[in-house]
Amino acid sequence: MRSLTTCVSPQLLPLHDLTDKTVVVVDVLRATSSMITAFAHHVETITPVPTLAECRMLKSQGYVTAGERGGQKVQGFDLGNSPFDFMDHQLHGAKLAFTTTNGSKAIVLASEAKTVLIGAFLNLMATAEYLIAKNQPVLILCAGWKGKFNIEDTLYAGALAGRLSNHFSFDDDATLAAATLYKSVASNLSEFLGRSSHAQRLMGFENQKDLEFCMEHDKYMINAALQEDHLVRIN
Amino acid sequence: MRSLTTCVSPQLLPLHDLTDKTVVVVDVLRATSSMITAFAHHVETITPVPTLAECRMLKSQGYVTAGERGGQKVQGFDLGNSPFDFMDHQLHGAKLAFTTTNGSKAIVLASEAKTVLIGAFLNLMATAEYLIAKNQPVLILCAGWKGKFNIEDTLYAGALAGRLSNHFSFDDDATLAAATLYKSVASNLSEFLGRSSHAQRLMGFENQKDLEFCMEHDKYMINAALQEDHLVRIN
Repeated sequence: MRSLTTCVSPQLLPLHDLTDKTVVVVDVLRATSSMITAFAHHVETITPVPTLAECRMLKSQGYVTAGERGGQKVQGFDLGNSPFDFMDHQLHGAKLAFTTTNGSKAIVLASEAKTVLIGAFLNLMATAEYLIAKNQPVLILCAGWKGKFNIEDTLYAGALAGRLSNHFSFDDDATLAAATLYKSVASNLSEFLGRSSHAQRLMGFENQKDLEFCMEHDKYMINAALQEDHLVRIN
Repeated sequence: MRSLTTCVSPQLLPLHDLTDKTVVVVDVLRATSSMITAFAHHVETITPVPTLAECRMLKSQGYVTAGERGGQKVQGFDLGNSPFDFMDHQLHGAKLAFTTTNGSKAIVLASEAKTVLIGAFLNLMATAEYLIAKNQPVLILCAGWKGKFNIEDTLYAGALAGRLSNHFSFDDDATLAAATLYKSVASNLSEFLGRSSHAQRLMGFENQKDLEFCMEHDKYMINAALQEDHLVRIN
């Protein structure tokens, strides 16, 4: 059976061998949820960039700039990091340059893997089906919060592990913990998440709307993957 | 309210500020369980050392050497890393030099904190009472497995958080996740742990006995803390 492992923070990624692996990068609140939403609304590419400066440089080349620092929209950027920012039909065919505190950096860190997918509750089933069809071991990379463990990304890892459990062996304690945690709170996910530090931070300047949207399961049957330095929709 | 945070791997410790904190270091299988057992059987001091060479040097100074590499007793050492190795009445008053893959190193890493305590299920209640009586914020440092997340140390963090919940605020997602996980599996802890990677590794060359002993709650009403470079029993 193929193996499924979970890395709870990008800072622990050097401990994992990425060769031949599909890495699913997840930053539920909100980078990867927003990226999947953007692809569902027909953006053409998303280039994840670690720094504000690189993002601004790409703007001068015609890219639409999006992202956040400390959860807030960046001054001078076209868009923030709320999934609702990416539903505009004017973004059809656009190329986005996207920078966030955790998610964009995690995608760049994972880029040495054989395949890098974007994970979110919004496209959970699509990702699970893709991974089952593909014959590769899988690593779920939680973007975390400034290098620390975070709960919403771990819950996603647990949810994905649950969907894959008949097809993959759980190789490690982090996956077992995440799957057990998800199962124990799945019936009450939003309330549980409301107690987490990042969700509380998020709700300090946004309303509940983003959080609830990002926790919707299986809304979009699409996948996005890294090709060279940018993400594209692959199905 | 004082804050309680959890660090799921020593590799993430640089992200935490240890100033004024009491750090509880836990390596349930088996280093900190064995250390508490040793103090319950009246060893005088335990010096945690990161390397085999340092341990051997201390042997030439009259120390009793103990520890493991890859879960196995080290050639030429007096004792291994099973708690049952530390019940011998001949160890009364002994000075131990102790080196293990994860636990000893985590203790050394934590040594810049104001207070460093040794945590295990075996002395869970004693540690909780000590922390409640003392007016300091607390960080639980999980020793993990070669830098990665592990489940038994996370479960301990969750158990301790549960005992402290009326006196401390949970500051972070890792503590919330650990407390929720512990609560969901507490009634069936040994069976759940039997599915974890480290427990399986351990049971490959030991029997079930060590695992079950290390999971006993509140067996010893003692605490041990770091003073300079060695651990002593403090109550």
